[in-house]
Amino acid sequence: MANEKNELWAMRHTAEHILTKAMINLYGEDKIIFAMGPATDEGFYFDFDHPEDFKISEEDFPKIEAEMQKIVDENLLMTKKVISRSEAEELFAKNSYKLEWIREISEKGESLTFYELGNRKDKNYFVDLCSGPHANSTGEVKAFKLLSIAGAYWRGSEKNKMLTRIYGTAFFSKEELDSYVTIVEEAKKRDHRKLGKELDLFMFSDLVGGGLALWTPKGTILRDQLDNFVWELRKEKGYQKVTIPHITKKDLYETSGHWAKFSEELFKIKTREGHEFAMKPMNCPHHTQIFAHLPRSYKEMPQRYAETTMVYRDEQSGELSGLSRVRSITQDDSHVFCRKNQIKDEFFAIWDIIDRFYSSVGFELKVRLSFHNPEKFENYLGTKEIWQESENSIEEIAKERNANYFIAKGEAAMYGPKIDFMAKDSLGREHQVATIQLDMNMPERFDLSCINEQGEKERVVMIHCAVMGSIERFSSVMIEHFAGNFPIWMSPVQVKVLPISDKFNIYATEVDEFLQKAGESLGVDVRSEIDDRSERIQAKIRDAEMQKIPYILVVGGREEESRSVSVRARGKGDLGSVQLQEFAKGLIEKIKERSLEV
Amino acid sequence: MANEKNELWAMRHTAEHILTKAMINLYGEDKIIFAMGPATDEGFYFDFDHPEDFKISEEDFPKIEAEMQKIVDENLLMTKKVISRSEAEELFAKNSYKLEWIREISEKGESLTFYELGNRKDKNYFVDLCSGPHANSTGEVKAFKLLSIAGAYWRGSEKNKMLTRIYGTAFFSKEELDSYVTIVEEAKKRDHRKLGKELDLFMFSDLVGGGLALWTPKGTILRDQLDNFVWELRKEKGYQKVTIPHITKKDLYETSGHWAKFSEELFKIKTREGHEFAMKPMNCPHHTQIFAHLPRSYKEMPQRYAETTMVYRDEQSGELSGLSRVRSITQDDSHVFCRKNQIKDEFFAIWDIIDRFYSSVGFELKVRLSFHNPEKFENYLGTKEIWQESENSIEEIAKERNANYFIAKGEAAMYGPKIDFMAKDSLGREHQVATIQLDMNMPERFDLSCINEQGEKERVVMIHCAVMGSIERFSSVMIEHFAGNFPIWMSPVQVKVLPISDKFNIYATEVDEFLQKAGESLGVDVRSEIDDRSERIQAKIRDAEMQKIPYILVVGGREEESRSVSVRARGKGDLGSVQLQEFAKGLIEKIKERSLEV
Repeated sequence: MANEKNELWAMRHTAEHILTKAMINLYGEDKIIFAMGPATDEGFYFDFDHPEDFKISEEDFPKIEAEMQKIVDENLLMTKKVISRSEAEELFAKNSYKLEWIREISEKGESLTFYELGNRKDKNYFVDLCSGPHANSTGEVKAFKLLSIAGAYWRGSEKNKMLTRIYGTAFFSKEELDSYVTIVEEAKKRDHRKLGKELDLFMFSDLVGGGLALWTPKGTILRDQLDNFVWELRKEKGYQKVTIPHITKKDLYETSGHWAKFSEELFKIKTREGHEFAMKPMNCPHHTQIFAHLPRSYKEMPQRYAETTMVYRDEQSGELSGLSRVRSITQDDSHVFCRKNQIKDEFFAIWDIIDRFYSSVGFELKVRLSFHNPEKFENYLGTKEIWQESENSIEEIAKERNANYFIAKGEAAMYGPKIDFMAKDSLGREHQVATIQLDMNMPERFDLSCINEQGEKERVVMIHCAVMGSIERFSSVMIEHFAGNFPIWMSPVQVKVLPISDKFNIYATEVDEFLQKAGESLGVDVRSEIDDRSERIQAKIRDAEMQKIPYILVVGGREEESRSVSVRARGKGDLGSVQLQEFAKGLIEKIKERSLEV
Repeated sequence: MANEKNELWAMRHTAEHILTKAMINLYGEDKIIFAMGPATDEGFYFDFDHPEDFKISEEDFPKIEAEMQKIVDENLLMTKKVISRSEAEELFAKNSYKLEWIREISEKGESLTFYELGNRKDKNYFVDLCSGPHANSTGEVKAFKLLSIAGAYWRGSEKNKMLTRIYGTAFFSKEELDSYVTIVEEAKKRDHRKLGKELDLFMFSDLVGGGLALWTPKGTILRDQLDNFVWELRKEKGYQKVTIPHITKKDLYETSGHWAKFSEELFKIKTREGHEFAMKPMNCPHHTQIFAHLPRSYKEMPQRYAETTMVYRDEQSGELSGLSRVRSITQDDSHVFCRKNQIKDEFFAIWDIIDRFYSSVGFELKVRLSFHNPEKFENYLGTKEIWQESENSIEEIAKERNANYFIAKGEAAMYGPKIDFMAKDSLGREHQVATIQLDMNMPERFDLSCINEQGEKERVVMIHCAVMGSIERFSSVMIEHFAGNFPIWMSPVQVKVLPISDKFNIYATEVDEFLQKAGESLGVDVRSEIDDRSERIQAKIRDAEMQKIPYILVVGGREEESRSVSVRARGKGDLGSVQLQEFAKGLIEKIKERSLEV
C-alpha cells in the first residue's frame, strides 16, 4: 500500500514536469519562469512566475493538455543526475527561484540532483532541479487532467511574490481519473466556503483579518450542538470542565518546551511593562497548572479536565483556507491526569466517546498509531526509554481493543505518541479527526505527581484528547460530508412553518409555539421558525429548501381545522398531512436519538 | 450628598497629611521619604520610601496613632498656597518623588499648590505638595484608624520602585468608624481570594502570570451556572449566540476608534509576517462585522447578539488584585442592533433581564445614568448632537421605567451614555455591576444600516449590555456577598452524602445516583458527591461544612432501612430524617426556582 502510494506520487511528479515542459513549449521560457511543483495526495501542482502582461486561464487547459499528451506519447526516459553547485547555477542562471533553492540546498551540505526528461537529442528534452522520485518514463502517465488555476505566494509567505499555480492530477488509469473528477466536481458543489455563505454559518471580515472566522447565530448553533454532544459524552465518563485564559507568560512555555519547539507559530505579545507573553497554541500547559496547584492523593486520581476553547497559531497568510486552516482554532480539548495503571481504562473510555460521537455524525473511522520518527529524534521531547514505553502502551491498547490499525512513523506529537482517527466522508475522502495522545513528558517537565498508597510521590501521566479536533476544521469536513444537509439534531433551523397566506399566520405561530413548548417539556431544544412574508407559497418552499431545512410545514385552512401540518421532509418530498401532536412526537424523538434520518 | 462626600474626602486627605507628619516626627525625614497619599472611598493611604534596613509593621500602629492624635488635638489650621517652581524645588530638594510631581505639573502648565499644616511657629508645622481640598483644621478629623500595611509600586507600575503603603480611614464620628471597622473585619473573613482558595474555585500560577485566573472544576461550575442563567433570560427575549475570535487586525480598531482611545491597554501582537494585531479589549467591533456582512431588511430588525467571551487588557502589575482586577476578563456581552424607534423596547427588555437576574442572587440595585463630561469632550467619539440625543433617550427611558436614578457626569463609555446598575452587597458595599449602553457612534463609524419600508438605507443604533459585567469581578463580589454560602442553584457541590461507615457506602451510592437521576428526569443538573473516606463521621461533617455545602446527608443503618436520609442544612443544622424521595423533590424544586433559601 505504501509502495503503491509512492509509485502514484512519483508518476504525478513526472506529470508535473511534463506540464512545465509543455508550457515552455507553448509560451517560451521568458513567459514561464518555473518556480516549483510537487506531487500531492490529490495530484500535483505547478507554480510559475511570468511577465505582468502574460495571462493564462482555464480556457487554455485543452491546448496545454494536448501538448502534454505529445510528451507522454514520446515515452521519454526520466533520468536522475547529481551535479555540482557551479553547474547547477549555470544551468538556472536566469531563474532566481531555482537559484534560491540551489543556494539553500548547497548551504545545508546536501547534494544537488536533477531529473532529465529524455536525452539532449530529443525535441522535448527538459531538465529540472528535483529530488524525485519519478516514474521511469513519461509513458507511465496514463491519465491526467488539469483542474484549476489560482494565485499562490512563493513558499507560502505573503512577504513573497504572488505566483500563478496550476493544479492537475494524474492516475494509472482513465477510470480512476474519471471517478476522481466526478468527486472533485461534487466537492466543488459542497465546498464549505460556498455552503457556509449560502447557509450563513460563518464569515470572514477584511477588518478582522484572514483565518479569523466569525460565526453567525446559525453557525454558532451548529458549533454548540456539536460541542454539547461531546460534553454530554464526556460528562458520563466523569470529566469536569475547567477554564483558562488565552495567554500566558513566556515562562510556562519555557517549562513545557513549546517556546523552543513551537516558537514560529506562537503569537507573541510584549506587555506595556516589557514582559513577554504568548497566546496559547495548546491548552495542556495551562491545564497542568490546575492539576498541580494542590497535592493530589491517589484516591482523587484520575483527574479529568475538559475545555472547549480557542487556541491561536500564527499561520502564514498563503496557507489559510476557509475553515480548513485558520488562525483561531477552537479545540474540544481534554486532559486526563492518571496513574500508569489507569492508562488503559482511560483510553478505552475516550475511545467509547469517539465511537459514539462519530456514529452519530455518520462517519466510518480508521485507526492510525502515530509514532515518532527515530531519525528526527531532536524534534521530540524526552528520552528514548519514555518513547518506547509510551508507544508500547499504545499498541497494546489498540490490540486489546481489536482495532484494525496501522502505524505511521513521524506522526507523533512533540510530547508523545498518538492514536489518530481518520474519518472517511461521503465522497470517500479521508480526514484526520479525533486524537488520543499519551504523554509521559509534560508530567516530567512540570513535575506532576500524586501521593500513592505508600505515601510516596508517584509520577503521573497525561492523556490528551480532542474528539472533533478543531471545531473549525471539523465543521468544514461536516458541511461537505452532508453537503449542508445536517442531521436534524444539529440543524440550525429544524422546522420552517409556512402559512399559505397571511390569514394563517396565527395558526403558523401556534404550530411554532407548540413545537417549542413540546420540546421544552421534554428537555429538548426545538428550533423552528415561521416564514410569514407575503410571498407565494412556492417561493417560500423553494427558499426553505435552499436553506436545507429538514422539515417544511405548510399550513392553511385544512391544516388549521384539523390541527395538522402538511409535511415536506428534506430529500423525501411531500409526506402529506400529519397531526401536529404526532409530528411533534416524531420530531422530538429524532432529535433526542440524534437520528441521521429525516 | 455629593457635598457630604467631598467633605469626607477632604477630611480624610487631611488625616493622611497628619499621618505623614506623625511618622516624620517618630522616625525622621531620612527614614520616611514621603511619596504620595490620596483620600479614597474607603479612607486614605500613604506611600513612602525608606532605607532598606528600616522596617515598619502593624505593631507600630498604636504608637503612630497616638502621635497623630496629638496633631489632631492641636487643631492646626490647613492653609493652601500657590508657589513657584523654583520655591517648590527648593522645598523638596531631597525628595525625588516630589520633584517628579513638580516637574510634571509645571510642564503641563498647571500651578503648584501646597498645603500647610499649622504655622511655621507650630511644633507640628508641616508642608506638602498637594492639590487638596482639605478640612479647615486637623481637629475636624474626629475618628481615625490605621488599618494595614502593604507594598505598592510608585505610580502603580512594576517598572518603578516598590514603596511601603499604609492604609487608614477616618470618619466624622466614632460610631461611623466602629461600624466601618466591623465591616472591614467581616470583609477580611469573606475575602474572595481567601475563600477562593478554601473552596478551591480559582487559582493563579506564577508560570502563567498575574491577573490571569485559572478556574478549577468547582469554579467553572459556578461561572457556568451564572452564565447559563443570563443566557436563559436572554434567550426568552430573542437573543442569539454568536462566536468571534480574540484577536483582530489593527484595522478594526482604527475604524472603531479603539486604537487611538484605548491604545495603552491593548495587548498588541506583531505577526511573523509583520502585521499588527491586537487582542480584543471589547467585543462590539467584532460583532458589528457579523451584523454588517449581509444587507438587513427592517423586517429582520432588531438583531440581538449575545456572547460570553474573554477580553484582554494590559493592566499594570501593581493594579492587579484577585478577581477584582484581572487581565483576562470574561464578559457576558450582548449587542442589539436596532432602529431608533425600537430603542425603548429593547432597553426595557434588558432591564427586565437585569432585574430578574439580580433578584435571584439577592442584590438590591441602584440606577446611575452615566453621562459624558462636557469638559473633556476629547475623550469621547462623535458629535455633541449625537451625545445630546443619546442622553435624552436614556433619561426618558429611566423616567418611563419609574426608576429612582441619579446622574453621574464623566462616567459614560467612549462611544455613548450608559445606564449603570449598582448592587449593594450584604456588607452594604456598593459595586457597579450591570450596564446598558446606548451607542450612536459605532454605527456611524462602521456605516451600519438597514433598509427601511421606503427601501432607503437607515442608520441603526447599537445597545451594549453586560448583565454581570465581568464574570471575574462579579464572582469576587458574589463570593464575598454570600461569604461562600452560595444559593443551591449555583453551588458547585449541592449535596454531600456521608456514610457513617464503610458498610453503608453502597446505600450512599444509591442515594447519590437517585438524586442525580431524579434531577435528570426533570431536566435539572443535581450535583451530589459521596465522602467515602474511612474517617469518623464527625470529621466528615466538619469537612463538608467547611466547604459550605448546602445539604449534608448522613446515612447509616436506620436510613438504609427506611430509604431515608438524615439532613443537615447549611446554617440550619440537623433537620432530622427525611424520606429520600421527599428530599429529592424539595431539592429539585429549590434548584429550579433558584431559591435563595436552603
